[in-house]
This record gives sequence, structure tokens and C-alpha cells, in this order.
Amino acid sequence: MPAGSDDSLREVSDVSPPTPYESDPVFELHRGGKMAVQSTVGLSSREDLALAYTPGVARVCEAIAADPSLAREYTWTGHTVAVVTDGSAVLGLGNIGPRAAMPVMEGKAVLFKQFGGVDAVPICLDTQDTEEIIRTVTALAPSFGGINLEDISAPRCFEIERRLDDALPIPVFHDDQHGTAIVVLAALTNAARLLDRKVGDLRIVISGAGAAGVAVARMLLAGGASDVVAVDSRGVLHVDRDDLNPEKRVLAAATNPRGISGGIADALRGADVLIGVSGGTIEEAALAGMTPGGAIFALANPNPEVHPSVAQRYASVVATGRSDFPNQINNVLAFPGVFRGALDARASTITDAMKIAAAGAIANVVDDSVTADAIVPSPLDPRVAPAVAAAVAEAASS
Amino acid sequence: MPAGSDDSLREVSDVSPPTPYESDPVFELHRGGKMAVQSTVGLSSREDLALAYTPGVARVCEAIAADPSLAREYTWTGHTVAVVTDGSAVLGLGNIGPRAAMPVMEGKAVLFKQFGGVDAVPICLDTQDTEEIIRTVTALAPSFGGINLEDISAPRCFEIERRLDDALPIPVFHDDQHGTAIVVLAALTNAARLLDRKVGDLRIVISGAGAAGVAVARMLLAGGASDVVAVDSRGVLHVDRDDLNPEKRVLAAATNPRGISGGIADALRGADVLIGVSGGTIEEAALAGMTPGGAIFALANPNPEVHPSVAQRYASVVATGRSDFPNQINNVLAFPGVFRGALDARASTITDAMKIAAAGAIANVVDDSVTADAIVPSPLDPRVAPAVAAAVAEAASS
Repeated sequence: MPAGSDDSLREVSDVSPPTPYESDPVFELHRGGKMAVQSTVGLSSREDLALAYTPGVARVCEAIAADPSLAREYTWTGHTVAVVTDGSAVLGLGNIGPRAAMPVMEGKAVLFKQFGGVDAVPICLDTQDTEEIIRTVTALAPSFGGINLEDISAPRCFEIERRLDDALPIPVFHDDQHGTAIVVLAALTNAARLLDRKVGDLRIVISGAGAAGVAVARMLLAGGASDVVAVDSRGVLHVDRDDLNPEKRVLAAATNPRGISGGIADALRGADVLIGVSGGTIEEAALAGMTPGGAIFALANPNPEVHPSVAQRYASVVATGRSDFPNQINNVLAFPGVFRGALDARASTITDAMKIAAAGAIANVVDDSVTADAIVPSPLDPRVAPAVAAAVAEAASS
Repeated sequence: MPAGSDDSLREVSDVSPPTPYESDPVFELHRGGKMAVQSTVGLSSREDLALAYTPGVARVCEAIAADPSLAREYTWTGHTVAVVTDGSAVLGLGNIGPRAAMPVMEGKAVLFKQFGGVDAVPICLDTQDTEEIIRTVTALAPSFGGINLEDISAPRCFEIERRLDDALPIPVFHDDQHGTAIVVLAALTNAARLLDRKVGDLRIVISGAGAAGVAVARMLLAGGASDVVAVDSRGVLHVDRDDLNPEKRVLAAATNPRGISGGIADALRGADVLIGVSGGTIEEAALAGMTPGGAIFALANPNPEVHPSVAQRYASVVATGRSDFPNQINNVLAFPGVFRGALDARASTITDAMKIAAAGAIANVVDDSVTADAIVPSPLDPRVAPAVAAAVAEAASS
């Protein structure tokens, strides 16, 4: 029986009853948050103060005023990224708002630091208006070397990212789109190696046409895939559908080369690869039409579209987004190295070439040891981010 | 001769010539900036990841979504402050813009951490429009436990602070106003002790009616002063002047009880105390009219309105804003402890009572050892911020 559950005792006590969060290891770990700021300079004497603060600092300010490019070198902006959300599409929890989104953004910031050595600051915005978000991020952009957009719902996320990337001289990257897309391309690259297939020859079905689905489709096409079919909750995307938003219209035109229509079962007939980024469920009957020996990536969290034990009956390679099954496809393989590389190269944007280079680097970390249960590196593999950073920086410079 | 100063060598070299900043200790210290982010949780195993990130983090998000007040306890916002500037009035450098302001904001953040244990994030805004600044800070407010406005020019700073403080559930504090005012009240308190005078009996002249001047006058009146005369570049503030902005009109009505007019020399005739927060110069002839045995605080940086060696001819206590003269009156004595106390008390605003308590705490740290050369503690005195924090938190709760 938990302490304090005796109501007669509680009535006479003026001590608050324990919250449901006490003695819970997740809440204990989160008490006070997960991050802090630290000084990288000493401040123990008046001489230190005179260098790091007034009067010395004024000379650094004047130098940057004369040549703003010096800000990258003489302020922390050269290694700092804002992790920006409006709390509209947080994990699988949906629109929980900016305050409730903060623990995820702190977690992201901590991962940025741990794997990429990038100093990330969580910024949770008290608005879900597209124009207001664009205005706000534009206004605070001089404070950072890059903008990682996070957990902003589709279709707003597309316009917000595109307009910010156009407007700002620093990289803007919506991780739910491109981080996922990079890691999926890496996983598919190694799955194809294992299956002795070429990515360009695979019939690929993507279930879900939200932020991740649109970006995964684009990335796979940019990375060499030729037969991609996307499916949303209303069925296969094709150019004759009149219920598509602008992003889905573009996607429909770029995909579905055989002009199929119908539902997920129609799309999967003869398919080699299923990539689930929908959050929904896919019936086992639909999987039966797949060509045997392919791959299923069921990436919805916490509940994959297809349970791995079921997926294994229809595919040789099975991956999920979860750490308790083999082949965890996790964005942390991508974003720390992508931003580290972009910052190192002083890139003003993150191009498709940089994303493809990132996917190749992730895949290559394990290419001499790929097995059906290990097509991507572990999220904790310390070799990944430096390899991604180097590949991204090189692609940025070429 | 510095390396590379031989032009014939430089022509045939493809190595960049050294910048004027190399081998300069101020620039060397600023390379890469002065701060970083650190994780306060371990992330070395899949179990760590499952607690600090998915899936564990989702439960913390859900708890905050159900009760937003839990954000203070389970995110870093409970100990985090944004240091926000638009770069319009940086140190004595003026309107140098957001990028060039960053080294000062980082310095401020480092001082927040060092003295108050407050995690401060510099936010340099790419706008100087009052409405846009208010909108932007309002939008990002859920990311922080407090807002420290910094180096925003008058008179915009008054409206920005007032409207943000009204709109937001967290403390908003323009340090150039209130940090300065708190430390001046502390210094005047101890100067009065030393001179065996009461603050309420002193004739006080404030030279400068910008952000600092207005706030110092208000703070001294709130702290017990009764005869304050403010002077701007056009002369003594009195209610008959028709060239005053709204803040100066209010100030004129609250000050100048003897209804004097004229210039600084007229104001100083018979005055006991001169407080310079103008950035200008005060002629020695004007000082000659002061009552002997008083105090002169010449706080303009880097050039005091009156050099201390001159001021000493007309006053028994002389203070400046500089570390190389006695009695440095520096905001760092106030802001780290003020925010620490406000955050500890979960205050939604910083009241006059909290500011007066802060001034009293600063003064009391040295009250048993006050001399004419040490009316305030050293900016590096580690006793100050905890004393200020405790006093502010107590005032917030009472």
C-alpha cells in the first residue's frame, strides 16, 4: 500500500499527500529537468570579469558589428541549435501544447549534445499559427547557428520549414521529416545489400503521408528508388484524387509510376518493401500480397503498424522504432551528426545531397557486419555521429 | 613585428593573413563563445534512453498536459531565464544590433549561472519593433521561468517591460532599469549609514532620465527618499516642461518637490547626492554648489560623468561603475540573486518590495565593514547572491 493511502491519516495531516509521481523512476529522473547551462570560461577574479565581461567584451561586440560573420567564431552561435516546437504533434501524444512538449525537447537537446557535441536550446512556442511561428523563429534566429523544427503537425510543418529555410541564413531542418527519412534510407540501403537487391529495383509502399511519409518518399526517390507508392488514410495517392493537399499532390505526381489505386492491400500486392509511418494498424491480410523475402519497417511508436512477430512471416528484414525489438530505426542516428556537419561546414541550408550523404554514412558504419537483425547501428553507437558529420560537411562543401 | 606583416611573403602565401584578433587575450577567450549546454542525466544505456527519452518521457509530457504547473518541477524551466535583447542600447556602444550584442548576453548568462545558479539563455532578436518584440517574447515564454530584458533602448524598454510583465505568468525584469536601481539604492543606503544621514533627508540629483535614471528615481522614492531631482539633456525635469515623454512626465510629477528649474548646476546647488546615469560629462563647476560631505555616484561606463579624483573634492563618498576604482556599483550584485529568489518563490512578477528587499540584502552584506571605499560588496563576493535570493523570495511570499 503506498504511503498516505490511509484517508483517515491524510485528513489530519497538513503535509501534502504524495503525488502519483513520487518514487517513479521516470519522474525522479525528470525532477528539475534534464539540462543546464555551463560557463566555458573562468570568472574567479576581477581580471577574468574584465576579459569576459566589461570592459573587454565591448571590443568583441565592436568587431562583430563591423563584420557579422565573426559571430560564428566569437560567440556560442557557431555550435548552437534551437529545438523549436509548437507542441502540436508531440511523439504519439498529439497536440499537447508547448509546456507539455518541453520534456521531449530537452531530451532532444541532451541527445544533440551527447552525440553531436551540439549545444541545443529547447524553444517551446505559445502559438500554433503558421505566420506567428515563422515570425517568431525569424526574430530569434540571430541567437542560433541552426533551427531544428520538432513535432509540428502536418501540413503546417511543410510551409513553416520551407519559408524559414528560404528566409534564414542558417540551416532549418524539420527532424520529423528529414531525420526519419535519412534513417529510413540508411536502413533500406543496408536491407537491400543484405537481400542482394538494388534500391532502384524495389517496389516500395509507404503507409502514411504526413510529415514523415512525405519526406521519406522524397528521400527514397532522391536516393535512387524508382517505384514508390504512398498510401494515406483514404487510400493510394494518385494524381486523379481531388482530396489532396499541395504536398500530397506533389507526392502523388512523383510516385505511383504504375498508376495503381485502391487501399493498402492493393498497394502491397507484389511489393518488396513496406514502410509504415502512419501510426495506424495494417491488417495481416494485406501483408500476404507482398513478394516474399522483402522488408517491413513498421515505425509507429509506441505501437508499430504491424507487430514484428507478424511481419516476420512476410518479410526477411523487419525493423521498428522501438528499442525492445531488433533494428530500431531512430532519428538520433541522424540529427546530431547532420547539424554538427552543417555547422562545421558553415552551411546555410541542408541540401538533399547532405541528407543522402548522412544516410550513406549511417549505413556504412555497419556495412561489414550487416545481418537481418542489425541493418542499422545502435542509437548509442558513438561512431555514427562523427561519420555523419564528416559526410554532411563534405557534401556541403562540394 | 607581427607574423605575416611582410607583404612580399603574404602575396605568395595562400594562408590567410592573421586577423587583428589573433594573440589578443580578449578574443582568444571569446573563441567559440563563453557557454555551453550540459546534460544533467546519464545517457549511456538503452535503459537511460528509455527513461530520459522515449518511451518514458511521454508520461512526463502527459502529466504536464494534465497539470501545466508541473512544468516548473519536471522541466528545466523552473531554473531557466531568457536574457533577451534587440541590440539597440548595448553597453555604451549604442545600437549595434542583435549579432554584435551576443557576447554581452553570453557574459550575462555566465554571471547568472556563476552567482545565482540560474541557467540563462541569450536570445538576441532580429527586430527593434516594440510590437514585434512583445509578440516574440510572449510566444517563447513557455520555454523559460523568467525574462531578463537587456540593453533595449528607452523609451521602448518601458512599454515592452510593462506589457510583457502584464501578459506573462513569469517574472519580467529589465536589468538596465531595475538592476541598476537596486544596486544604487544599496549603495546609497550604506553611504547614508557612513555619513550618519537618513536617506529621507538627503537632497538627491539624478543626471540622466533614460532607462536607468527613471528606474533609479522610482526605486529611491520607493525606498524612502523624499527629495529627488532628475535632470535630462535639456535640464531639470519639472511638470511645466512640454517636451517630456510619458515616462518622464510621470517622473517629473513624482520628483522635484521644491519645483526648481534650470540645468544640472541649478539642480546640484545644495544637493547632498549626485547619481550620474547619463553617459555624458558633468562640469566640475557644477559640483561646486553641492553641500560638502555628500556622495557622488558617477556610473557611466567606461567614462564616468565625473572622474573620481575630481569628485572626491566635492563629496565624502565616491562610486563608479568601473572595477579599477573603489566602490564599483555593478548590476551583477543584483540580477543573479533577484531571479534566483523569484524562481525559488515561483513569483509571477518582481514587485517593488522584492527590489527593495534585494537592495537591503546587498547593503547588509557589508554593513559591519562599511568604509568610504567599500560601501557595496565586491561583484565577486559569493555571499551576495544567496542573501539577495533569500530576501527576494521572502518578500515575494509575504
